[in-house]
Amino acid sequence: MQVNFLKPSDLIEKKISNISKTKGHWIEIHTDKIKLSNKKESIREYIRHPGAALIIPELNNGKLLFIKQFRYALGKVFLEFPAGKRDAKESTLQTAKRELREEVGYTAKKIKFLTRIHPVIGYADEVIDIYLATGLTFKGAHPDEEEFLIPIELSPKEALDLIWKQKLTDVKTQVALFWYLHHQKL
Amino acid sequence: MQVNFLKPSDLIEKKISNISKTKGHWIEIHTDKIKLSNKKESIREYIRHPGAALIIPELNNGKLLFIKQFRYALGKVFLEFPAGKRDAKESTLQTAKRELREEVGYTAKKIKFLTRIHPVIGYADEVIDIYLATGLTFKGAHPDEEEFLIPIELSPKEALDLIWKQKLTDVKTQVALFWYLHHQKL
Repeated sequence: MQVNFLKPSDLIEKKISNISKTKGHWIEIHTDKIKLSNKKESIREYIRHPGAALIIPELNNGKLLFIKQFRYALGKVFLEFPAGKRDAKESTLQTAKRELREEVGYTAKKIKFLTRIHPVIGYADEVIDIYLATGLTFKGAHPDEEEFLIPIELSPKEALDLIWKQKLTDVKTQVALFWYLHHQKL
Repeated sequence: MQVNFLKPSDLIEKKISNISKTKGHWIEIHTDKIKLSNKKESIREYIRHPGAALIIPELNNGKLLFIKQFRYALGKVFLEFPAGKRDAKESTLQTAKRELREEVGYTAKKIKFLTRIHPVIGYADEVIDIYLATGLTFKGAHPDEEEFLIPIELSPKEALDLIWKQKLTDVKTQVALFWYLHHQKL
């Protein structure tokens, strides 16, 4: 089996040069010439992303707060935890607090980092940091002018059932719920 | 709370026209002018993706087969289940079988669909179909010329521990393992 003979160092790819940066309205594609470990040249391409934060709002009644939001790329409404892109100079913790306040209107007594995930390793450098917010107080939401969403309270069990019924298919939300359930058992 | 008064129909965004298609070497950005439910116009942008398949290879010794692969966008090696993009005219089941054979060298007696996930709802239309392969026979791998990978056998428990230790951060692989564990309990 050919691939069994590879050493870890055989996996590494090195940048030779940037061939192009191609920009849409916001999204930017980086196209690089690279050297494979066998010395051959190739091309790798990816989207630059500032990183993002997801926040799991645990309400004082024990339920979790989700949102329903239309996702244009897929043309349908998704059930998700609040999340958003990191603004310049923000930490992902600041992003998490901002999204909690803007999207669903809460401040939290405690925000705990659970994990960092990589959602698109094939073609983007995006990371999503997942936080758990507890001790919530409602202060009033103020979503972006162009952001329309509906908040939904679900128990962890109800949300898990929606996953197994294939009605909650957003991966960042699935992963965050699994981490939440794991964290509750610690 | 302003957002509480929205109806599901308030979430819907409608395409008015395509503004541009911007192509890198492979990746294509679609930029559309759209109409929000409040009749205002806005811009939405996303990456078109052909869809992908992930395959969970369950070896006859009960372990699962993962691969280690360098991911250029993030500049490091990731532990993943075998997966790949759908070729034109392929079903994702065909993609799953092809990746199982190409990347790790196995054919399967049985391949079962577990679920479809959406990894990048914010800016891509990608779907990943997750399959479980059992009754495996080794026939010899033949990865792409430019694809270097190292196969790794792990028990489900070992893989789960790596997730909780934050050493397996690829979301498609995390979600696939959770679905595998759920499937084993059914």
